[in-house]
Amino acid sequence: MLHNDQMSQWDRENFFHPSTHLAKHARGETPSRVISGAQGVYIEDRDGKKLLDAFAGLYCVNVGYGRTEIAEAISAQAHELAYYHSYVGHGTEASITLAKMVMDRAPAHMSKVYFGLGGSDANETNVKLVWYYNNILGRPQKKKIISRWRGYHGSGLVTGSLTGLELFHKKFDLPLDQVIHTEAPYYFRRDDLDMSEADFTDHCAQKLEELIQKEGPDTIAAFIGEPVLGTGGIVPPPEGYWAAIQAVLKKHDILLIADEVVTGFGRTGSMMGSSHYGMEPDIITIAKGLTSAYAPLSGSIVSAKVWKVLEDGTDEFGPIGHGWTYSAHPIGAAAGVANLKLLDDLNLIENNTVTGDYLRAGFRERLADHPNVGDIRGVGMLAAIEFVEEKDGRKFFDASAGVGAKISAAMAAKGVIARAMPQGDILGFAPPFCLTKDEADIIITTTEAVVRETLG
Amino acid sequence: MLHNDQMSQWDRENFFHPSTHLAKHARGETPSRVISGAQGVYIEDRDGKKLLDAFAGLYCVNVGYGRTEIAEAISAQAHELAYYHSYVGHGTEASITLAKMVMDRAPAHMSKVYFGLGGSDANETNVKLVWYYNNILGRPQKKKIISRWRGYHGSGLVTGSLTGLELFHKKFDLPLDQVIHTEAPYYFRRDDLDMSEADFTDHCAQKLEELIQKEGPDTIAAFIGEPVLGTGGIVPPPEGYWAAIQAVLKKHDILLIADEVVTGFGRTGSMMGSSHYGMEPDIITIAKGLTSAYAPLSGSIVSAKVWKVLEDGTDEFGPIGHGWTYSAHPIGAAAGVANLKLLDDLNLIENNTVTGDYLRAGFRERLADHPNVGDIRGVGMLAAIEFVEEKDGRKFFDASAGVGAKISAAMAAKGVIARAMPQGDILGFAPPFCLTKDEADIIITTTEAVVRETLG
Repeated sequence: MLHNDQMSQWDRENFFHPSTHLAKHARGETPSRVISGAQGVYIEDRDGKKLLDAFAGLYCVNVGYGRTEIAEAISAQAHELAYYHSYVGHGTEASITLAKMVMDRAPAHMSKVYFGLGGSDANETNVKLVWYYNNILGRPQKKKIISRWRGYHGSGLVTGSLTGLELFHKKFDLPLDQVIHTEAPYYFRRDDLDMSEADFTDHCAQKLEELIQKEGPDTIAAFIGEPVLGTGGIVPPPEGYWAAIQAVLKKHDILLIADEVVTGFGRTGSMMGSSHYGMEPDIITIAKGLTSAYAPLSGSIVSAKVWKVLEDGTDEFGPIGHGWTYSAHPIGAAAGVANLKLLDDLNLIENNTVTGDYLRAGFRERLADHPNVGDIRGVGMLAAIEFVEEKDGRKFFDASAGVGAKISAAMAAKGVIARAMPQGDILGFAPPFCLTKDEADIIITTTEAVVRETLG
Repeated sequence: MLHNDQMSQWDRENFFHPSTHLAKHARGETPSRVISGAQGVYIEDRDGKKLLDAFAGLYCVNVGYGRTEIAEAISAQAHELAYYHSYVGHGTEASITLAKMVMDRAPAHMSKVYFGLGGSDANETNVKLVWYYNNILGRPQKKKIISRWRGYHGSGLVTGSLTGLELFHKKFDLPLDQVIHTEAPYYFRRDDLDMSEADFTDHCAQKLEELIQKEGPDTIAAFIGEPVLGTGGIVPPPEGYWAAIQAVLKKHDILLIADEVVTGFGRTGSMMGSSHYGMEPDIITIAKGLTSAYAPLSGSIVSAKVWKVLEDGTDEFGPIGHGWTYSAHPIGAAAGVANLKLLDDLNLIENNTVTGDYLRAGFRERLADHPNVGDIRGVGMLAAIEFVEEKDGRKFFDASAGVGAKISAAMAAKGVIARAMPQGDILGFAPPFCLTKDEADIIITTTEAVVRETLG
C-alpha cells in the first residue's frame, strides 16, 4: 500500500511524538502505529488490525469511541461558530451551557469553572490561582505546593514538578523548588510490611504534618492530590486517608486541590472522585472525562471561598492577567455538552461499578494465587495488577527486566491494550465506561494467558 | 428572550472567564457578550448585532470565520476518529499529514514538529527542550532564558515569566528567576529620542551583550522573541535588528526561539516571520495561524541541530518524559490540514501585503497629522496606532486616563473591533487575511471618526 508507506515515511521524517524513544522512532526501529478508526471499546490501525482498548486512549475516551452524538455536536458547532474567544466576559451558548452543566455536577460548595485545554494547563492555572489568592490575602510567603511522590499532575515545568515520577523529572531539572513532595498513599508499597492500612493512613498524615512543620506552615499554600493515584500506579487511597489528610490541611489553612483529570465525571463510579472519598477541595482539576477526549478541553473548578478572594483581587487590581486564546473553545464546549448528556442518558457511571467490579473479580479469580501477582486493586472502571518477583517479603523485579512493559507488549500482540505504568511493574486498566461483561471477559482471559506465558 | 436571559444568568453564576474583571462580571456590571455566529470578517452576538472583527478573535481566525471547508474537515474527522493519542509513536493520517505540511512550510534547516494545544503550552515545551538539550550536551549550568520586555509568550508560570508585560506578572509572583529580560525592540519608545533606527538596533544588541556578560554566557541557554512584537504593542523590529541580535547569540552559543504564534503562516505577508526577517531559529513556536483557531492546536518546530541532540538523549536515557494527552489531537490536525490548504488555494498570504499596506496607508492619510497620533506602524496584516498626549517630546497620556481602552470601546459601539493593547495607549489591528479593501475602508473610516470624536 503506497499510501500507507508514505504515511510511515512522513511520520518518521516530520513528527516529534510525545513520550517516545525519538531516535528509535526516527530510525524506524519501532513499529509505525497509524490509527485509522475506532468503535465502542475497539480501535483499528491502518493494517486493519483491531485492538480492544482497555485503557480508553489515555484513560480519556470515557463514553467509548465512535459516538455519533458527540461527532454531530462538534460538526454543528464547527459550522455555526468554530471559534470566538472568552476573554473580557465573552461566551458562546456552548461554553455557558457547559459551565452550568459542570457546576451542576460539582460538589455544592464549588462556585465557578475556568476552562483550559488539557490537564497540565489546568494545574498550571491552579498554581497561579493559589499564588494570587495568597497575595490578595496578604500572605505573600504562603506559596509552596505539596504534592505526593507518584502523583501525576502534568508534564509542564511546574506541573511536571507537581508530578512525582522520575520519568518526568530526569534531564529536565525538575522538580522546581516551589514544589515539595510527601509520602505516596500506596499501601502495597509501604516500607513497613507489618503496618495495617489504618496505621499506614496515620503514617501518611504524620509525614505530611512533619513536612509542614519542617517547611513552616505559613510557607505552604496548597496540597494537590488525585483522589485515586493514577499514572503513579492506579492506587485507591488507604482507608480513611482523605479524612486524615484534610484534618492536617485544615489545621494549617492549606488549600486542597483535587486533581480529578482521571476520576472526574464518573470513573470511580461516583460523579466526582472528591465525593466518592469525602474530599472537600478548594479547587478541582478536570479534563479527560469532560469531553471524553473528542475535543481538547479542561477546567479548574474553584470553590466559593476561593472565588470570593478572586473577586476581591479584581476589585482591587483590575482584570486578572491570565488566559489562553483557546480557553472555553466552542468545539471543546460543544463536545463537553454532548458528552455529559450521553453519560447520563446511557447510565454509564453506574456501569463502572458493576462491570468494574466484575473485571477485578475476574482478575482475582484467575490470578490472585499466581506467584508473581502481588496486588490486584482498583475502583470503578480502574484496575491494576502489580507484579513481584516473590510474594514473600514483597520482592519487586529489577526494573531493568521490564516485566510490566513485556506483559503490556504481549497483550497488545494478542489484541488487548493495557498500559505498563511508568514506575514499577504495574499493568493498568481504564476501559471506556461502556465496557460489557463479554468484553471484560476478553480482557481477563487475555491477561491471564499472557501472564502465564510470560511469567510461567 | 427568556432563553438568552438564562444564558446571561448561567454565565455570571458559573463561568470564570479569562482576562476579565471577575467581580464586575459576576455582579452584572459589565455587558454580557454571547457570540452566536460569524462569517468572513464579521461576528454576530445574541442580540443580532454584527461587528467587523478587525482583530480576528485574538489574532487567530486568519482565514476568516465560517469556512465550510474547515468545518467539513472537522466533522469528517469527528465521525471517523475523534481521538487517539500520539504517545509512543502513534499517529493518525491527519496528524502525520499536518506534520509534513508544517515542515514543508518551515525554514529548510528545521527538522520535526511536536504538536501541543496553544501557544503557552508550546513555549512550555520549548523551555523543557532547551533544558534537556543542554543537559544532554553536558552543560547543566546553561539554563537561563532571555526574553524581551513587552514580549508575549504565554500566561503560564514559566511562559508568563517569558512574557514581559506587567499585567501578566502582578500578583502572580512572576517572572520566576529562570527568566531574565532585555530591551524591547520598540523604536518609538526608545529612551533617547535622538537615536536613529540603526543606532537603536546597535543599542539593543549592546544591551543584550551586556546582560549576557553580566549573567555569564555559560548560564544562558536561549533567547526567545517574536519576529514582530505582538501583544506588547504590535511593533515590527527596527532595521537590522534580527541580524544584530543573532550575531550576539551565535557568539555565545545561545539558542534562538522564534515565537511565531502570531506571525506564523502568513500574517507578515511571508509564510513565516522568521524568513521575513532573516531569522535562523533553533525552535519555532506555532499556534493560532496553524488552524486559524477552528480547533486548538499548537506546535514546536525544532531544527536538525536540536533534534540530533534529542535523539542522542533518548538513545542514552530512553523515551522522553514529555507529552500532553491531547498532543496532535486529530480534530486539531484535521482543522490544520484544511486551513493550510485554504491559505494556499485562496492566495491569502499575498493579500496580507496588498490589503495590509492599504490599511496602513489609509490610517496614515487620515490620521498621521492628528496631534495625538504618535505612531502608525505594522507589517502584513498587522497594524497599530499609538496615541500620545503631545507629539513634541513624545509625551504619553497618563495610564489612568485609559485612552486606548476608551477608543477601543467607542469603536466597538460603532461596530468595529480593534484591540486596546494592554500596556500603553495602542490600538491594535490584526484582521482576518481575507479582508477586502471595502472592509479596510470601514475600519479606516470608523477609526478616524472615533479618534476625532474622542480626542478632538
